[in-house]
Amino acid sequence: MRIVLLSGGVGGARFARGLYGVLEPGDLTVIGNVGDDLEVLGLSISPDLDSILYTLAGLSDEERGWGRAGETWNALESSAGWGGEDWFRIGDLDLGLHLVRTHALREGATLTEVTRTLVARAGVPVELLPATDDLLRTYVLTPAGTFSFQEWFVARGHADEVDEVEFRGAEAARPAPGVLAAIDGAEAILIAPSNPFVSIGPILAVAAIRDAIGRRSVRCVAVSPLIGGKAVKGPADRMLSRMAGGTTPADVAGCYTGLVDALVVDEADLPADAPVELVATETLMYDPAAAERLARLVLETACA
Amino acid sequence: MRIVLLSGGVGGARFARGLYGVLEPGDLTVIGNVGDDLEVLGLSISPDLDSILYTLAGLSDEERGWGRAGETWNALESSAGWGGEDWFRIGDLDLGLHLVRTHALREGATLTEVTRTLVARAGVPVELLPATDDLLRTYVLTPAGTFSFQEWFVARGHADEVDEVEFRGAEAARPAPGVLAAIDGAEAILIAPSNPFVSIGPILAVAAIRDAIGRRSVRCVAVSPLIGGKAVKGPADRMLSRMAGGTTPADVAGCYTGLVDALVVDEADLPADAPVELVATETLMYDPAAAERLARLVLETACA
Repeated sequence: MRIVLLSGGVGGARFARGLYGVLEPGDLTVIGNVGDDLEVLGLSISPDLDSILYTLAGLSDEERGWGRAGETWNALESSAGWGGEDWFRIGDLDLGLHLVRTHALREGATLTEVTRTLVARAGVPVELLPATDDLLRTYVLTPAGTFSFQEWFVARGHADEVDEVEFRGAEAARPAPGVLAAIDGAEAILIAPSNPFVSIGPILAVAAIRDAIGRRSVRCVAVSPLIGGKAVKGPADRMLSRMAGGTTPADVAGCYTGLVDALVVDEADLPADAPVELVATETLMYDPAAAERLARLVLETACA
Repeated sequence: MRIVLLSGGVGGARFARGLYGVLEPGDLTVIGNVGDDLEVLGLSISPDLDSILYTLAGLSDEERGWGRAGETWNALESSAGWGGEDWFRIGDLDLGLHLVRTHALREGATLTEVTRTLVARAGVPVELLPATDDLLRTYVLTPAGTFSFQEWFVARGHADEVDEVEFRGAEAARPAPGVLAAIDGAEAILIAPSNPFVSIGPILAVAAIRDAIGRRSVRCVAVSPLIGGKAVKGPADRMLSRMAGGTTPADVAGCYTGLVDALVVDEADLPADAPVELVATETLMYDPAAAERLARLVLETACA
């Protein structure tokens, strides 16, 4: 089976690990969000790709929910002492990866190439592709002003309500090599339980990716990131309320109009109506086994 | 008193701390070697400037002899796991400084400017100047081939005998801003007990610096890096034997012909003849107080 997953960071990464656990090696292609990417201290950081990589490789910190297990913070603390910015938390282990990626990018490698090398190093038989190698950055428009994604999310603690999301560079961005072939050759297309606006949105903002999914001949199934109308983590519920008018399955499905054939929701969100097929289950991925159960159901729904 | 010190890394740094301990705040200008500088993992590293900074700021690891006390190595280990080179040992605390410097240099700051900022952050009232802001790199010619300084020193453990030292970029290199003014305005010029070939040599390879010292109207005093003809650390004795023909005070003084008026040597190197005034004392800086005693004697000799 060739399965394509569109994914943001933590929640998407956990779902990707569930799929990875139930699929054969090599069957999974994950297309990751790069709208959150940023440059800090001269380092090129791709938080969502890294969350996926760390989670698949068993390196992630499950309690903190992001970054690496066993992390230390000495370099960042030292850097701050010398006047470096430290609002974006980079641990020492995490930094090791950023150094390698940043150096490779500066030497002329593409993000796709660097990511492939990292995944191979981790020994994870999954194809992990950035949505694009071109510059695509998410900005949020809020009553307090317009902010880059990480400035809003991390530095401002995503406290500002979001009126609109902007994907700078999206018009010129081309899908990364392999992305369209993966979508066109997939037996099912899945959308992870990630934030539709700021995690999946930047991927779909690449017109050729959206078009490829729109013209699919296989089913596309999304998993709602909400449980009982609430986000497990992050601002997805607040953003749906404000920008989609509500947090029901219909509101989530409305984010993917024309792109999904079914939406998997939590039982806590029933009863509900939606313009697409609804499948209900327990969606909280409290451990890898729960993620695998969810993955199996989503695959069954997609390959029905 | 305005005192100028030419200095390499560890030994020079300890002597600089001795001077700093006995001079009034603001009286000391250290001109540091940049021939050892290198780029690793995309980071711009200035080992000798950092040794001086760390030592003056009380941050250096006295036992290991280089780098910072309380250092950890997580980022480098992680980086190596992702395929990054790890032959040059960069600790996490050290890395924090390299990130800040590299970022500032990429943003257009000069090494002089970055160094001034770092010294100010450390709260050390010393002027620390790189010999030059231009690219100047030390290479050693050995029977096994030609190597950049750090490749020879660190990666090859300075095992190869050195036939010749080359300072690439020296012809075009201009003294960093402030260097000539400091030399011309000094009441004494000192040369630290650093390796004459690869630590002081690159500084003197900048013709305008050598000329300024050559035309001095004050005294210039060097401290020999040898004790009983042996280096305290590193390959200075082997290099003097092979390239200067011996390890006596006269051989050391021969490295600075026309540039020094006196050479401070260890009592273990007496009796000796030399073409300059010789002053003997205990030169081993086994603790800060010993470095201060040495500094006092050198200042007395220079201001005689």
